[in-house]
Amino acid sequence: MQELPITKQHHINTYKNGSFQVIDAEIATEYPLTIHIHDVEFATIVCTPSNLTELIVGFLASEGLILSFKEIKSISIDSTQGIAYVDLHRKSSIDPTLFSKRRIASCCGKSRQSFYFQSDAITTKPLISSLFISPMLCIQSIEILSTLSSVHRLTGGVHNAVLFNENDMIVQFADIGRHNALDKIYGTCLQQNMDTKLTFLAISGRISSEMVLKAVRIGSPILLSKSAPTDLALQLADELCLTTVGFIRNGSFNVYTHSERIKDTLPFPNKP
Amino acid sequence: MQELPITKQHHINTYKNGSFQVIDAEIATEYPLTIHIHDVEFATIVCTPSNLTELIVGFLASEGLILSFKEIKSISIDSTQGIAYVDLHRKSSIDPTLFSKRRIASCCGKSRQSFYFQSDAITTKPLISSLFISPMLCIQSIEILSTLSSVHRLTGGVHNAVLFNENDMIVQFADIGRHNALDKIYGTCLQQNMDTKLTFLAISGRISSEMVLKAVRIGSPILLSKSAPTDLALQLADELCLTTVGFIRNGSFNVYTHSERIKDTLPFPNKP
Repeated sequence: MQELPITKQHHINTYKNGSFQVIDAEIATEYPLTIHIHDVEFATIVCTPSNLTELIVGFLASEGLILSFKEIKSISIDSTQGIAYVDLHRKSSIDPTLFSKRRIASCCGKSRQSFYFQSDAITTKPLISSLFISPMLCIQSIEILSTLSSVHRLTGGVHNAVLFNENDMIVQFADIGRHNALDKIYGTCLQQNMDTKLTFLAISGRISSEMVLKAVRIGSPILLSKSAPTDLALQLADELCLTTVGFIRNGSFNVYTHSERIKDTLPFPNKP
Repeated sequence: MQELPITKQHHINTYKNGSFQVIDAEIATEYPLTIHIHDVEFATIVCTPSNLTELIVGFLASEGLILSFKEIKSISIDSTQGIAYVDLHRKSSIDPTLFSKRRIASCCGKSRQSFYFQSDAITTKPLISSLFISPMLCIQSIEILSTLSSVHRLTGGVHNAVLFNENDMIVQFADIGRHNALDKIYGTCLQQNMDTKLTFLAISGRISSEMVLKAVRIGSPILLSKSAPTDLALQLADELCLTTVGFIRNGSFNVYTHSERIKDTLPFPNKP
């Protein structure tokens, strides 16, 4: 597959101290990738053109089309045209209209409606994990996330996601789409059949309901973010036993759900 | 229609100076709204539940389903269930699979592919406008954008979009989705049959290809942003004669495309 540039140089006019100057700037590539399944057009993702196989695997799993990597027979990517051809082992054709169907509570309408897509309610289950991490590790992980991405430093235009275990960074991706960055991690975990029970995630973007569902599917019990959560994300995180930590900035942060997983392993040495 | 809360209060654990404290925090609502057209489920938007009619009108126009407000016969919203029922004057049924279809260049594959959806290539045309604004107005507009949104100040979780004319702010919206904020503006413009030739837009989020297409559809010739653009967005903006200005921060900014619209009306008084 042809290597695709993840940034491109543009001549731009920059304004500073009252005057314009022409400079060269690196701009993040926005790459449309259309996924065909059994020769039927399924969806178009707009992404940073790196780790496309991981992205496709993670996306298909996020959409509830596959549960494991071995359900995929083949993936071939025509990078010039921006088309991926996916064959699954099961032979049934895919009807795109069956996906993203709204789930509406059938009773009085006052029931909790945290899951708004039928497929999400079916394909996610509450996390069980004994993992806990220290407040210091929350702060350090976001610092690592911030320093990692060279594309972000160049362009200011991409989101980052990192999967950690207690001792190390396992994998990290950058993408113009915050969902894609997490799908690339998900795809990697599926490809490697990774045990994720004792891992945690750090993302640069907001904690929306979709990000919570992705973290739960990945199987990572803690989701750290530099940014804010939404109300629906917190409802889902609460139900699915995901620890959510946001606004990790300048040594402070908020724990929104399942705070039992954020605690010091040992008392601070400088405390009595 | 029942008024829906755009934020909700949550008890959270905040960590600061080495210890935890329980506080009340305002969290942005994430509201799934499913649009039915002629009783067929068309799409689910996840949004901030305010100005839903404007959002629906703008969304349908962005998707290329309508070109003017008068094509809509009725919109009724069941806010408890999160469902909007739209009737159009034309009677043909809507086939959701016809939308978001990828447009693939039929020739050698080396042609420019800025438009990746068929409907975008058909429904947008280059902007013609004599508008220009001063560098100072670029900077001031982003300052106004930043100070406007009380929801953002409370929650940190929403994007803002403002439509200005040369003298004033016309309309502003906040939404957890940056596309939605611009769709709410688009819907307002269509409802009021507004002449937008001499308006400009300011947004808090990144300039992606979708944001460029929305600005062009709105008919506003200048798009200002606090953030970065993508490469495809700049290609489209160039082709569609949209002026894009990004990274408007601390008195400086970058002009990426059609820089002829950013200039001083008169020489600076303090210049010779």
